[in-house]
Amino acid sequence: MKIATLSVGDELLCGQITDTNAGTIAEVLLSHGLRVQRHMAVGDSEPDIIEAILGLARNSDAIIVTGGLGPTADDLTARAAARATGRRLVLNDHAKAHVREMSGRLPSLVVCPLNDKQAMIPAKTVLIPNPTGTACGFHLMNNGCFMFFLPGVPSEMSRMLHDSVIPFLAERTTGKRAIRMERLNVFGPGEAEVDEMLGGIARPDQGLYLGICVTFPWMRITLRAEADGDDKASALLDPAVSLVRERLQEYVFSNGDRTIDEIIAELFIRKGMTLSLAESCTGGMIAQRITSISGSSRYFLEGAVTYSNAAKSRQLEVGPALLAEKGAVSREVASAMAKGVRRAAGSHLGLAVTGIAGPDGGTDDKPVGTVFISLAAPDGCWTKRFRFSGSRDEIRIITTWTALDWLRRYLLKKE
Amino acid sequence: MKIATLSVGDELLCGQITDTNAGTIAEVLLSHGLRVQRHMAVGDSEPDIIEAILGLARNSDAIIVTGGLGPTADDLTARAAARATGRRLVLNDHAKAHVREMSGRLPSLVVCPLNDKQAMIPAKTVLIPNPTGTACGFHLMNNGCFMFFLPGVPSEMSRMLHDSVIPFLAERTTGKRAIRMERLNVFGPGEAEVDEMLGGIARPDQGLYLGICVTFPWMRITLRAEADGDDKASALLDPAVSLVRERLQEYVFSNGDRTIDEIIAELFIRKGMTLSLAESCTGGMIAQRITSISGSSRYFLEGAVTYSNAAKSRQLEVGPALLAEKGAVSREVASAMAKGVRRAAGSHLGLAVTGIAGPDGGTDDKPVGTVFISLAAPDGCWTKRFRFSGSRDEIRIITTWTALDWLRRYLLKKE
Repeated sequence: MKIATLSVGDELLCGQITDTNAGTIAEVLLSHGLRVQRHMAVGDSEPDIIEAILGLARNSDAIIVTGGLGPTADDLTARAAARATGRRLVLNDHAKAHVREMSGRLPSLVVCPLNDKQAMIPAKTVLIPNPTGTACGFHLMNNGCFMFFLPGVPSEMSRMLHDSVIPFLAERTTGKRAIRMERLNVFGPGEAEVDEMLGGIARPDQGLYLGICVTFPWMRITLRAEADGDDKASALLDPAVSLVRERLQEYVFSNGDRTIDEIIAELFIRKGMTLSLAESCTGGMIAQRITSISGSSRYFLEGAVTYSNAAKSRQLEVGPALLAEKGAVSREVASAMAKGVRRAAGSHLGLAVTGIAGPDGGTDDKPVGTVFISLAAPDGCWTKRFRFSGSRDEIRIITTWTALDWLRRYLLKKE
Repeated sequence: MKIATLSVGDELLCGQITDTNAGTIAEVLLSHGLRVQRHMAVGDSEPDIIEAILGLARNSDAIIVTGGLGPTADDLTARAAARATGRRLVLNDHAKAHVREMSGRLPSLVVCPLNDKQAMIPAKTVLIPNPTGTACGFHLMNNGCFMFFLPGVPSEMSRMLHDSVIPFLAERTTGKRAIRMERLNVFGPGEAEVDEMLGGIARPDQGLYLGICVTFPWMRITLRAEADGDDKASALLDPAVSLVRERLQEYVFSNGDRTIDEIIAELFIRKGMTLSLAESCTGGMIAQRITSISGSSRYFLEGAVTYSNAAKSRQLEVGPALLAEKGAVSREVASAMAKGVRRAAGSHLGLAVTGIAGPDGGTDDKPVGTVFISLAAPDGCWTKRFRFSGSRDEIRIITTWTALDWLRRYLLKKE
């Protein structure tokens, strides 16, 4: 099945926002054995949208169009779809009821005449329900090509793709190649290093592909096997996944979509341990990651963002003399912070971070990027010195990841 | 001048990496008064590349192709360009010398036979120098369409675009329209509401365009004026910008690329005031935003992430009786947290947040999304109740933005 995607929106052609929908659709389809052959983007211009729909449809069995279904005047996709396929644009009662119902549920929206525009749908189409937003999608068949129209809001688009588009396409796809994929998420080594460690595993000639995608500061390794039948694809994929895990060992922190935050949450709950945090240069970033998990109150007790020295002394009982002698960014203060927050909170683990995120504040002795991370635990207290590079934001992010990964490795070793 | 872009690469159609080149090219061209009308992406398939080149060229005065010029077997763009334009693929001596010279300068590369592949260029083309990588680009004219072929590595592509493509196009664009743009960043009202408030400002017939781009939970309003000459474009743009500011008032928090964090930083420094934070459901997200600004230690003293009730009592002196009577998510506790952290830190302002981010923990009385934000200041303490909707992450983000925006408005009023 030849599939094309079309993203609609001026903002995509101004460099203002990056089009993530195209990648999401391609990835989801691929995991179901369907491949996107072409992608196109056009602005909010009716003639351009019509031309793109017809041009892509000419060489495709299905096209998936996102964007331009909103309530405002520059949302033109429904009208363009009607024109391109010789249909009238009519007020769809189901879509109208949906807009009203959703507007009631989302208190910030006001049902104004503009919103009825979202219920104007080409005639003779099938509505695609949107459980999380006001804009219904729709699909139709024109000259042998299935056409799907979805809103551009990524979360809404994604839900509708899974719920409605994928099942529809999967049912109509015969004789497709079986595709099996596995993703391993890795933190620690650099891309070139990983590339070298994984040499020889990919066998494109046999249908076994390996991709490394760097998403600072971690990376995702995607293994994909294509064969005639699920069993053959699995027989190709499974040994390769084992081999990657063997070579990368504990650098692999999870597989699939599981985040490092989720992994840490599981470990804390399984071990029945609790955590407190003292952050200086990361300014709450570690606490924010830990608390992004629902149920984190079971293991996370409290965090202190101690930017001022006074706060370090009062909240963490780090002595002013120590601060004066060693400096706020030092091995001794990091250790005192970790022990201090652990004692104050009464948690099993206390983790502390102090460093120079820059761009100012560096010295010859402690240049920008110097970070101390300390872990206080029932069985000891350890402090490590790091020298990270990058922008202020990058240094804060890699510090956060390094701290989270340390927690993960510590808890894993206790199993 | 009608311009289209084409990105080549399987990885773009697997969702493995997001295509940033398309956005970069669009943005750079726009700043030179040139507009990208269509964008397309295809995989590493010679027939697909040829079809895309010819299809785009049919309706364009110029096309810019990126990717597929590398040394490996799946880099097919040069051959596809030759086939599409009826040229032979020949070994280009200049390109060959360049590959060898660059390979000597970049220590990680080895000059292997493969690299000669990068010197195979369609005949009768003009080379585009690549000062930072091995792959030369090239351009040619076919059936009245300028075609540019650049490598896909973003930094190399970008440099070559600036050095070679832009000057070439600018020289050949006669009577091009002057373009002036202004971006206003808005937080508060919904998209439909803003659209209604800004009704009648855009005048596409006169070359004055208005776009609304929602980047949850805020949005960016882009005004663009196109006219014959900079003065005329300014005369079109400036009154429209004033009008938007007048209608949206303090909903506009900044213009251009300035973030709300930067605006708050400027206000704190200008007022000489200090801040402390007490966060429950946002778990450090507000502190992390505040400390993302270099120099935030001048006004940010400390933050407390008080997830447990014990931490609320000990760090913020919120009485256990109050917590038991009113519950941790209550107006009274929010107010006590704000006053408590302000007192403990000795800051001018104390801001506190407590709420239910979900997905669990909601009750009939206080459903998921119920959030109390409290601001304690020298001139009083105010607490507001909100009811947000969305995922856990969305509720945390909109709570953070609402708190930041409250700080901004408070400081603005003090001016």
